[in-house]
Amino acid sequence: MKRVLNFSAGPSKLPLEVLKIAQEQLLDFNGNGLSIMEGSHRVSMFEDVHNETIELIKKIYKVPDNFKILFVQGGASMQFAMIPLNLAKNKKVEFVDTGIWSSKAIKEANIQGLDVKIVASSKQSNYDHIPNEIHFSDDCDYGYITSNNTIYGTQYKSFPKCKNLVIDASSDVLSYEIDWKNVGLLYAGAQKNAGLAGVTLVIIREDLLSIADEKVPSMLKYINYANSNSMFNTPPVFSIYMLNLVLKWIEKQGGILQIQKINEQKAKLLYNIIDESDGFFVGHSKKDSRSLMNVSFTIKGGDEILEKKFVSEAIKHDMIGLKGHRLLGGIRASIYNAISLNEVQSLCEFMQKFNKEHS
Amino acid sequence: MKRVLNFSAGPSKLPLEVLKIAQEQLLDFNGNGLSIMEGSHRVSMFEDVHNETIELIKKIYKVPDNFKILFVQGGASMQFAMIPLNLAKNKKVEFVDTGIWSSKAIKEANIQGLDVKIVASSKQSNYDHIPNEIHFSDDCDYGYITSNNTIYGTQYKSFPKCKNLVIDASSDVLSYEIDWKNVGLLYAGAQKNAGLAGVTLVIIREDLLSIADEKVPSMLKYINYANSNSMFNTPPVFSIYMLNLVLKWIEKQGGILQIQKINEQKAKLLYNIIDESDGFFVGHSKKDSRSLMNVSFTIKGGDEILEKKFVSEAIKHDMIGLKGHRLLGGIRASIYNAISLNEVQSLCEFMQKFNKEHS
Repeated sequence: MKRVLNFSAGPSKLPLEVLKIAQEQLLDFNGNGLSIMEGSHRVSMFEDVHNETIELIKKIYKVPDNFKILFVQGGASMQFAMIPLNLAKNKKVEFVDTGIWSSKAIKEANIQGLDVKIVASSKQSNYDHIPNEIHFSDDCDYGYITSNNTIYGTQYKSFPKCKNLVIDASSDVLSYEIDWKNVGLLYAGAQKNAGLAGVTLVIIREDLLSIADEKVPSMLKYINYANSNSMFNTPPVFSIYMLNLVLKWIEKQGGILQIQKINEQKAKLLYNIIDESDGFFVGHSKKDSRSLMNVSFTIKGGDEILEKKFVSEAIKHDMIGLKGHRLLGGIRASIYNAISLNEVQSLCEFMQKFNKEHS
Repeated sequence: MKRVLNFSAGPSKLPLEVLKIAQEQLLDFNGNGLSIMEGSHRVSMFEDVHNETIELIKKIYKVPDNFKILFVQGGASMQFAMIPLNLAKNKKVEFVDTGIWSSKAIKEANIQGLDVKIVASSKQSNYDHIPNEIHFSDDCDYGYITSNNTIYGTQYKSFPKCKNLVIDASSDVLSYEIDWKNVGLLYAGAQKNAGLAGVTLVIIREDLLSIADEKVPSMLKYINYANSNSMFNTPPVFSIYMLNLVLKWIEKQGGILQIQKINEQKAKLLYNIIDESDGFFVGHSKKDSRSLMNVSFTIKGGDEILEKKFVSEAIKHDMIGLKGHRLLGGIRASIYNAISLNEVQSLCEFMQKFNKEHS
């Protein structure tokens, strides 16, 4: 069996231990004589997994009791629509624009004809930082941020104050401890840090559940998920099962705080290589906004021939997924939870060698 | 490894061959060195699977060229909302009510404030048949039917005429040949005949793609799926991969027509046991409406103690999922494509033995 070093931005690497358990249980889950994919979601074989997953999230992520954990389908893009449909009581919503994903969320709120205000943006400098001064209005329905920006490699170091802060944490969920005091809703597609594409984790403060208008489609109302324990209809059972395995893996690593420490070490290794390369590698993000999840950089400030060579040489060394997003170009190494310190060290060694050979 | 006989109504049995391939490829897909779950949806490893899946559906299901194949998330319940949002140009929609799933679709159209007409219903006789006389108006936006009714065990033998017929085929997709001449849109959640929960197959005639109002959320517009080849955002990659494996399995069985023949044989075996039981087993559906997918019956017209015993004795014989839906009670055997003739024969033998011992 061959396994490559997978630096894909998403869907992305899963812990090998998780895949091995899934493989082992694929034809017969816990002696039930069938796969977890094959069972009714209304019997205990799946219900136990489902409920355990919710409890694991609460425990590992230290979610306060006045929040509900929901499993929704449709990815972050569905949340771009569901959030205003559910939370925009007075049709007054505010955003920080830190990249393409914030922009898409803003576009969706505009489609709904809301009063949309962008309170801060780093668009003018090609989204190379998280804005310093962020002030949401006291009377806005919610203030919206994207906690980590996969393309540009930027990440909030602390969250701005807002009565109802909404956080798209699709690319850094479960990678550091959250201060829930200030949060109204946090959501994340699972396919980067939490398992498979096909399930979106929505963690919502209970007082925000019942605002939606009666004309909102049933599948787009958070309250229907809350009232049915996310079984309003058949949930994506296998994606929830894989999330369950990932959560147990996080627990086994020592929990979120330990994961956070390793993530900080991993990112530090890579940024050191960039900073000590004398301009051979150039990080896109300003230093104070650097992401622990996605490290985006160019070679010699954008030498496309060298960058192409870097990606193809990396593939020869069994390192994949390093090509930057088409909007930014360059190189991007995504180092989510499942990427080990050793794997980052291998990438660092490759980068140093490549630097020596081409500077 | 233990494997039971799994008669669950959904999620339900997958062909063992399909599970074995998935298991074998779980850590390393085709020598790529990673799982299909772990790769970006924007690289050829997944894109090839995705496009092959679409081509397989067209080929196996004989879908005409003027239809598009879309992969959507959210299950049938999301379609209950998406269909009126996309197709109800003049807000005039018509339904046949053949059970709980039709009723839910009707409810969702009512939420949107449409002019909703129920042109035929079997509600008065507890949904024990498909209405004979179905006439949709010439000027309705669409006429909606549920081709197979899982709870009540009824199924259309032919489709009513309608300019834009919409078919919920969630529980009998890919189980018989479709006459597409009369179809506007056919959809199905995958978790019964087509793989895993988490992906919904939408097959839509191209002229119906672009009707939706501009205020409809992007993720709820069919045109956005069509224009992006169902990659408007990250698709549920693993569910699409499993659909791919199921389609190849259908091809290996000899295609849809062969599958249909086996389904007819399987159902005939079971209905014969019921008909020859002298009233010990009583089928819920009238004979002309009997489903080839779900066989719902009572014991002695509703002897709950005997029915409970039937289910628990069956479990002792490693047969699961036979308890009827709570709305109808009794027994239900779901015999989707993946259930073999042999497995149905085992159930028949068990039923005969149970009859002898308790009549």
